[in-house]
Amino acid sequence: MAAMKNAQFIAFAPLLFQAARVLRDRGFLRTLSQRSPQGATIDELAQATQTSKYGVIVLLEAGLAAGLVEKEGDVFRPTRTGLLIERDPLTRANMNFVQDVCYRAAGHMPESIEEGRAAGLCELGSWPTVYDGLSELGEPARQSWLDFDHFYSDDAFPLVMEQVFSSAPRWILDVGGNTGKFALQVLGHDPEVRITVADLPGQIASCRAALTGAGLVDRASFHPFSILQADASLPRGQDVIWMSQFLSCFSEDEVIHVLSVARRALGPDTRLLILDNFWDRQPNEVGEFCLQAISLYFTCVANGTSRMYDSKTVLGCIKKAGLVVESETDRIGWGHTLIECRAPRA
Amino acid sequence: MAAMKNAQFIAFAPLLFQAARVLRDRGFLRTLSQRSPQGATIDELAQATQTSKYGVIVLLEAGLAAGLVEKEGDVFRPTRTGLLIERDPLTRANMNFVQDVCYRAAGHMPESIEEGRAAGLCELGSWPTVYDGLSELGEPARQSWLDFDHFYSDDAFPLVMEQVFSSAPRWILDVGGNTGKFALQVLGHDPEVRITVADLPGQIASCRAALTGAGLVDRASFHPFSILQADASLPRGQDVIWMSQFLSCFSEDEVIHVLSVARRALGPDTRLLILDNFWDRQPNEVGEFCLQAISLYFTCVANGTSRMYDSKTVLGCIKKAGLVVESETDRIGWGHTLIECRAPRA
Repeated sequence: MAAMKNAQFIAFAPLLFQAARVLRDRGFLRTLSQRSPQGATIDELAQATQTSKYGVIVLLEAGLAAGLVEKEGDVFRPTRTGLLIERDPLTRANMNFVQDVCYRAAGHMPESIEEGRAAGLCELGSWPTVYDGLSELGEPARQSWLDFDHFYSDDAFPLVMEQVFSSAPRWILDVGGNTGKFALQVLGHDPEVRITVADLPGQIASCRAALTGAGLVDRASFHPFSILQADASLPRGQDVIWMSQFLSCFSEDEVIHVLSVARRALGPDTRLLILDNFWDRQPNEVGEFCLQAISLYFTCVANGTSRMYDSKTVLGCIKKAGLVVESETDRIGWGHTLIECRAPRA
Repeated sequence: MAAMKNAQFIAFAPLLFQAARVLRDRGFLRTLSQRSPQGATIDELAQATQTSKYGVIVLLEAGLAAGLVEKEGDVFRPTRTGLLIERDPLTRANMNFVQDVCYRAAGHMPESIEEGRAAGLCELGSWPTVYDGLSELGEPARQSWLDFDHFYSDDAFPLVMEQVFSSAPRWILDVGGNTGKFALQVLGHDPEVRITVADLPGQIASCRAALTGAGLVDRASFHPFSILQADASLPRGQDVIWMSQFLSCFSEDEVIHVLSVARRALGPDTRLLILDNFWDRQPNEVGEFCLQAISLYFTCVANGTSRMYDSKTVLGCIKKAGLVVESETDRIGWGHTLIECRAPRA
């Protein structure tokens, strides 16, 4: 019976997802969380959320099915799952990202798999990959994308400053700098350090605007490029090359290419720091679950060829690119891993 | 941790639903079910399903997250849930219905709740309700709608023939006869019985075609009408008035109106038989779950005002319409309930 229930949960999953979203966004879960432990009746919820009695009934019954609310007599109370949907910031970021960036696009999963391209991206705009369109993404997709990115990448930046600065670097190269969150963190951390941000031209524009706004652009330079071009190159001479949540944007073959481009820029003492989330290095099954599910975003929306990797795959690519792993640090913040590499000794 | 996992399952539910659909439709689950217990590797599945290695990896990892497959070393095997997604006809009907009829429409749930109309129906066509559009619905939506309807309604028809014919009726009125499945069953069951089918004009055309095709139209007559009109009336003098999965198409106030229209057509000995699925009368939690989830289809797609009812609500409407309940029979086939009513004794 448990397997049959799970199968039906999957079969009706899109409807339950939408009901959960409305229960959250119309204030049902907030109201229920505020009226704990006494709970609330259908009439009380109709009044508190300004919803028709019909709307309250179908949403609450869907909430019973999805395990978001419980009923005792005429009174409804939130479950722990319902409270997390309301209050937990990671859950909120995941759900908004799935709704605003992935929902309609995911309907194109069959073609995405068949054709090896992000066939769902057409629901958001006309770009070959999401990275080409990131700076032009409409709202609420753009904000939800950035909020999501924050959890799976930026969130860990303060936690790794000590390791980034352990060699007292004077010049850092941020490959895939995106909106400049890491650059801001680094420039704020050390008043002497300089940074070069390398990314696609659209992202460079966002990043330059962010650093200008923070009054830090004087210590920044920019390297607009597409790393996928066969002759792509990076400036040389930095003390640290940084890549956060970057390799998951590429197919396995592309990851080897990207790491090879980085390798050609490494001096004998340059440290290559790779921050990423690997599903086989998570402290618990929730982290593993989220990362495996997020791969489907890369399939349908991002580019159709990349995914959230396991560490074994990325370590294999690092080896194939001729790099040497110096250290691996797991369980940073929300399940991040920091891999430090260098060029092989001559 | 269980609540956090459940919350993430809901947050990523649309992506996992789509992955499950592709795992089913590209033959992954069929291949895995055929290679039990030895299982299959990524390369074997890539070959058997003609899928890129990338596609196999993201789908199998999503399958791990969704609990559809298990991994042991390099070998994947299906879980019981995965086998149900592949083999169970109810699960297949539910999933196809959710994909082909509800998926895009469900994205309009916020407006549907706010405005009390099926705001998602615009994804399928330009009709005020799904009933107005049923005979014009495109494929695959129409077939998925009919396959789904089969499970929640037609499926029980053979099981209730004995009770329908217990009073040796000569003339049966089928209110909401739709594509004629019940009429075919009844006319095939008894070579003397006559039937009148009442429904919207589009459905009457489908029904007439079905009965003509079966060579049974001589014993049928048709009553095209909209039961929601204030002056709606039904022919009088039948021995049985039949309504299957009909009341769930209406709001509570409309249910009382529909039952009142039926009541005015009842003679002293006419039996009114109502076949429906009530979520509070299910033999197990799976039935309860499905019916609560299906209500969201009525909210976003069907008409924005109706739902799968609990028996208490419908019995209240029956009383308000001035009808008397003679008997209630639960657990017919897939959790159907048959309520027999009559006019009050003068």
